[in-house]
Amino acid sequence: MNPLVDKMTSFIVMDVLERANELQRQGVDIIHLEVGEPDFDVPECVSEAVVDAYKNHQTHYTHSLGDPELRQEIANLYKREYNVNVSPDQILVTSGSSPAILLTMLLLCHTQSEVILSNPGYACYKNFVLGAHATPVFVPLNAENGFQYKVEDIQNKITPNTAAIFINSPMNPTGTVLTAEFMQEVAQLGVPVISDEIYHGLVYEGKAHSILEYTDNAFVLNGFSKRFAMTGLRLGYLIAPKQYMPALQKLAQNFLICASSTAQKAGIAALRDTSDYGKIMFDTYNERRLYLLKRLRNMGFTIPVDPQGAFYVFVDASKYTNNSLQFAFDVLEKAHVGITPGVDFGTGGEGFVRFSYANSLENIKEGMDRLEKYLQSLRDGESTNRLID
Amino acid sequence: MNPLVDKMTSFIVMDVLERANELQRQGVDIIHLEVGEPDFDVPECVSEAVVDAYKNHQTHYTHSLGDPELRQEIANLYKREYNVNVSPDQILVTSGSSPAILLTMLLLCHTQSEVILSNPGYACYKNFVLGAHATPVFVPLNAENGFQYKVEDIQNKITPNTAAIFINSPMNPTGTVLTAEFMQEVAQLGVPVISDEIYHGLVYEGKAHSILEYTDNAFVLNGFSKRFAMTGLRLGYLIAPKQYMPALQKLAQNFLICASSTAQKAGIAALRDTSDYGKIMFDTYNERRLYLLKRLRNMGFTIPVDPQGAFYVFVDASKYTNNSLQFAFDVLEKAHVGITPGVDFGTGGEGFVRFSYANSLENIKEGMDRLEKYLQSLRDGESTNRLID
Repeated sequence: MNPLVDKMTSFIVMDVLERANELQRQGVDIIHLEVGEPDFDVPECVSEAVVDAYKNHQTHYTHSLGDPELRQEIANLYKREYNVNVSPDQILVTSGSSPAILLTMLLLCHTQSEVILSNPGYACYKNFVLGAHATPVFVPLNAENGFQYKVEDIQNKITPNTAAIFINSPMNPTGTVLTAEFMQEVAQLGVPVISDEIYHGLVYEGKAHSILEYTDNAFVLNGFSKRFAMTGLRLGYLIAPKQYMPALQKLAQNFLICASSTAQKAGIAALRDTSDYGKIMFDTYNERRLYLLKRLRNMGFTIPVDPQGAFYVFVDASKYTNNSLQFAFDVLEKAHVGITPGVDFGTGGEGFVRFSYANSLENIKEGMDRLEKYLQSLRDGESTNRLID
Repeated sequence: MNPLVDKMTSFIVMDVLERANELQRQGVDIIHLEVGEPDFDVPECVSEAVVDAYKNHQTHYTHSLGDPELRQEIANLYKREYNVNVSPDQILVTSGSSPAILLTMLLLCHTQSEVILSNPGYACYKNFVLGAHATPVFVPLNAENGFQYKVEDIQNKITPNTAAIFINSPMNPTGTVLTAEFMQEVAQLGVPVISDEIYHGLVYEGKAHSILEYTDNAFVLNGFSKRFAMTGLRLGYLIAPKQYMPALQKLAQNFLICASSTAQKAGIAALRDTSDYGKIMFDTYNERRLYLLKRLRNMGFTIPVDPQGAFYVFVDASKYTNNSLQFAFDVLEKAHVGITPGVDFGTGGEGFVRFSYANSLENIKEGMDRLEKYLQSLRDGESTNRLID
């Protein structure tokens, strides 16, 4: 019907989620380990800030780049955490980080452009590239290598049409944190790096680095959905080199107007929060991570690399399937556990499935029990089949 | 730097606003008649609904098409006001109507596509068309004709590449309400009509019709910013023909995820509101409209047609200038009144300026007094110059 939409891949995790919700409406109890959405409430200071915003009549358009106070707090965050100097004038606040990705693509690409992406990688990146009528170019990541990007592989894909290189650390779906060495080297390839830092703050082993520690020729994507459990508020941002800001502002004024005024007040409160809430979330995620890893390995799954960050475990399920889509839907229909097929992250994810631990330990435990039983039934079925043969 | 951004026109009203804000920071008192933003607070039920949403932990992702309850209320609105049957499954809720426009363009256009627009018309429409790598094709509107679109003029521009026809009633910047006859005829041209109905609910003379009264082959844009003064909440929507919904959902899932969960709860409350607040806003706008028309005509401006809707008066300023941009900035710098140059709405707006009455009667009065004095000083200057000559 439309060449763009036809070329775009589906966002399969949404299909799993929607089928899961349909089953739930039919009365089936489902354990959701498919979606990458924190089960936590927003920090208390966030609700309070929103109530105050309404009381103070702050329900009007903001500056098209975002509330100056919020942009200052974001600059402070990058100073505090990475010791990098970001000016508030380099920041564009958007309704979630997704529109920021689209604007970055529209900014950097023309119809001949190529954008380098990892395979596997976040399902939507390639569609954003297509949305700007550019071409995604994939660099395969290998499980044996801990799903680390290799700079040589990227370098080999660079052509005069390369508009940007996408990186994401901690990475969805693998939880891999890219090494400082890699960050330093990728920053020196002479191509703008788009660094999706949305899972920063959720790193349990090692340390995540911002691309801004290594170069100014970079576009940083970040937001409040993951770290502060503010998914429903739709608040994200882009940090860009100064010279691109007039063009970005033009795109934002025309295509977005501005982000929610009240969500922006909530963002200020979240960044200033001094409560223990972030620490509690972090510790809780880590506890779930360790539990999930143990259970999955006990079931005989291969996990090539322990995820260091985000809230996902990317699991080699090739022992059970070479069709991750079929497998994920089978697990949903028969074990009533939602998981994401690896193929949602590209051909390089085939044979894998992703488990999210953005759900309570209790639910994760129940999900693992169900899965274990289901896998046992598969093995029993196989034995039976063999006996019959 | 970028072929897309270079082709896009600036959103000039934002430049005026930003200069106005700069002057304010320097201590200058500015009367804002440039921005199309209601000065009203959100209805009380909206603040209450948001507080409830936080209490009820509704701070998570919603369905990618939008909260089903909100989509039902939108369907109810279209049934109530226009007696048309819209299914909630035909509705996509977005963060303001702007992203909905972008998605509609990405859906309907490819690189050879042409999209028909009025000149003058809303500044950003043409940039959305460019954002989808398509070509805007302009149909001139004439002041003598009350800025009504003529179907023959549209028909003459249709080619095999025409992807859609944009209409907007009540229209920004003229306040013109398109006639039922026009709506009926444009619906029969065999090209999808994109009908921006964002100013519906703000019609003081005559009646606004929805394109859905005349055809199902249409895309309706609407939202909560203007009618409910909810600009800062960023809540809009698109109603589309059923067969396009899977493609639209794919675009929305990938590029937007969903709209704000709490803003959507606010939208439900706004649509169910039974208070007099809407009526009070409406009457207040109308009072300002009549006052502004009288004052501007008293100053010698030609107003070719009384605006019937929205909150703008589009004024022929050719007596004073043939450079509306210069004139608007002169009025800002010298009279400290923000107004929007007609050229922001296309070449067909040159010689005109737009006054917004989304400001208090008191401020409008003060703005008119300042403008009157400024115009008098211009005339005095001319006389002096003549005497000197």
